[in-house]
Amino acid sequence: MSQKKPPSLNYDLKATKKLFNEYLEKGRDKTEIKLPPDTVKIDDLDRNKTLARLYKLVDDVIEKIYNTGRPSIKLPSRATSNIKWDEENDLLLLGNQLQEKQFHTLTSVTDVTRLMRVLEIVDELLVKDIHATKREIFYSDVNLFVEQKNSDKSIEDVATMLYATRNSTHIVAAPKGTCVGRLRIRDKNDIIDLEGLGSGGWTISPMLDNIEIIESDAEFILVIEKDAALMRLAEARFWRKYPCILITAQGVGNVAVRMFLKRLSRELNLPIFSLVDSDPYGHYIHSVYLRGSKRLSYESPFLATPNIKLLGVLTKDLDAYKIPNEVRIPMNKQDKKRVKDMLNEDFVKKNKKWEEDLKLALKLEIKAEIQAFSAHGFEFLTEKYLPEKLTTGDWI
Amino acid sequence: MSQKKPPSLNYDLKATKKLFNEYLEKGRDKTEIKLPPDTVKIDDLDRNKTLARLYKLVDDVIEKIYNTGRPSIKLPSRATSNIKWDEENDLLLLGNQLQEKQFHTLTSVTDVTRLMRVLEIVDELLVKDIHATKREIFYSDVNLFVEQKNSDKSIEDVATMLYATRNSTHIVAAPKGTCVGRLRIRDKNDIIDLEGLGSGGWTISPMLDNIEIIESDAEFILVIEKDAALMRLAEARFWRKYPCILITAQGVGNVAVRMFLKRLSRELNLPIFSLVDSDPYGHYIHSVYLRGSKRLSYESPFLATPNIKLLGVLTKDLDAYKIPNEVRIPMNKQDKKRVKDMLNEDFVKKNKKWEEDLKLALKLEIKAEIQAFSAHGFEFLTEKYLPEKLTTGDWI
Repeated sequence: MSQKKPPSLNYDLKATKKLFNEYLEKGRDKTEIKLPPDTVKIDDLDRNKTLARLYKLVDDVIEKIYNTGRPSIKLPSRATSNIKWDEENDLLLLGNQLQEKQFHTLTSVTDVTRLMRVLEIVDELLVKDIHATKREIFYSDVNLFVEQKNSDKSIEDVATMLYATRNSTHIVAAPKGTCVGRLRIRDKNDIIDLEGLGSGGWTISPMLDNIEIIESDAEFILVIEKDAALMRLAEARFWRKYPCILITAQGVGNVAVRMFLKRLSRELNLPIFSLVDSDPYGHYIHSVYLRGSKRLSYESPFLATPNIKLLGVLTKDLDAYKIPNEVRIPMNKQDKKRVKDMLNEDFVKKNKKWEEDLKLALKLEIKAEIQAFSAHGFEFLTEKYLPEKLTTGDWI
Repeated sequence: MSQKKPPSLNYDLKATKKLFNEYLEKGRDKTEIKLPPDTVKIDDLDRNKTLARLYKLVDDVIEKIYNTGRPSIKLPSRATSNIKWDEENDLLLLGNQLQEKQFHTLTSVTDVTRLMRVLEIVDELLVKDIHATKREIFYSDVNLFVEQKNSDKSIEDVATMLYATRNSTHIVAAPKGTCVGRLRIRDKNDIIDLEGLGSGGWTISPMLDNIEIIESDAEFILVIEKDAALMRLAEARFWRKYPCILITAQGVGNVAVRMFLKRLSRELNLPIFSLVDSDPYGHYIHSVYLRGSKRLSYESPFLATPNIKLLGVLTKDLDAYKIPNEVRIPMNKQDKKRVKDMLNEDFVKKNKKWEEDLKLALKLEIKAEIQAFSAHGFEFLTEKYLPEKLTTGDWI
């Protein structure tokens, strides 16, 4: 091991602590979010509670059959017009418009049959205490679902009907993400120390109802867009010198990764940063962690981490860290459109520093990958850029 | 936990042991492969040995400059005409045709400069004992490499020139794979028990020179095409009842996963099986583990696992396990072409059972995913299909 000493500026715990505290004052992750009155409240339930809601729902339907012969189910609408940005909590949420599914009309019969089949499958999963992916649900009755988009829709309908997160139904995402660093968790009988997994890390299990966060002496959490960048930090055992938890999801975080991050945020109450490519897609990835995606807005409170800060790579960093022109990539038409779309989002408009950086990107018409720092040597990212950004509080 | 008892047929250790032993007799993974005389021998070196070769190579060039003023480097050609299938070892290998890179011609000057730059970077990586991805190499000198395909080519040239695996140069793949089950490894200071990672598993580190395989009481290794299928097995803690090691790589195994599997195969000498979709792409994924890819044929002996068996999903399994018609997918034109291409491969022609199954697929014109077993319930895969296939020796 002949690793060079890090250059001049080092990680200053005191200065950072002050900045972190200010950050946390403003951005504390509230265990109980106060939802605006015109939005829907969703719960993350254990399997017994989900089962209870499911049985109540089915009982109601049966009662309606007896009483009127014309059963129906009401559930919150997931139409775009019913998706609201809650400025107070900085979240995308589902409004209180309802849709009604009639059982007795010719047009709705297939839809309702699929819905009932998914309810039946969810019952099986919960009773057996097992989990399944959306793909498996589709394959469990292809005849009925015909295409996966149909079973996917029914799965989301069922979760919304139960006013519960999708995870509560034991229908989970495929694993796609890694966590490593100063964190100890339990997965059923196994206690896992994420500091002792070498440079490999722990593949984040999507069966989060089995996961318990035990303890952590980390001072911050860093979410990284790319596996390769995580590898760079893991090789340097970054968390030893800078006590932290590292997470990557290979691009946009899927439900499992976002929910896991949210759990960490809530239970550990630490500053959280993201490190993404300096391009509109990277900014979008950050925004999904920050406010949730539109499609899954009904469970935003369990998926979004409103206190996450964009550490980089910012457009202004490219000049500040003298990133050579050769590794800056000209924006194409689609990139520019995406930046403009981002600039129109309420949550960007509210954040002056973010708006400024996106405008700068649009003016310079350039983007860059995290790997661009390699132009200054492979250790520049871990020994200069990250410590300096953390110490100076230069985040959005 | 109210898991059902597995159906009638159970995992019969004695019967399987006999089958496994026959398998191992035929398929023992030889530590030293006897290469045919007309192929190139490549070594997997530690960093000091790689450095020694690198310095020798540069010394030779300098000597040529002094003596003739017209330096050149000879290295094995990676042209298709120089890629050979070694029937004895069942591997794709590089023949002994050489190509010569002249330093003094106008056409070769850029190529040679890039080659020398990669040599310089490899020197840095080895001296500092750090690793980098191909993408980072490209970004470390975009001016010179212009496009990543150029740096990629130079990286492969350098490895071939040194008669060493790419891993020996500390240029590694991004992490992309998970391992879980009855295995204990060491990554530098960390001892990692892959049985104690819950349902999540260990993200396979591409820095394999730091990884040491300590011990295992597994009786077989199962390589799985898809994360979601691994999740199904991890949720059932499959390795507790059926002592095994599970690996997935999300599709085609990258260099890190294939090299890790090869190390396991060599050091543990266990039966190895693959579980892939019943389609030409699944069969292709199996073939890459089995014999290596054409592009990386020069390091096949360190990447290929010739004793891996195709456990399933076979086309004939679809009838044998009464997979309903609705979850069988009709083949498209490209699927059929791929099957025909596979049937033309020497290594398929040599394997009658494989040939038969591909011909059956072509006759029925169907394919199916691993998830198709969900049509029989979510636990069918772990409680019926896999135990039965392992016990009856019904593999290719």
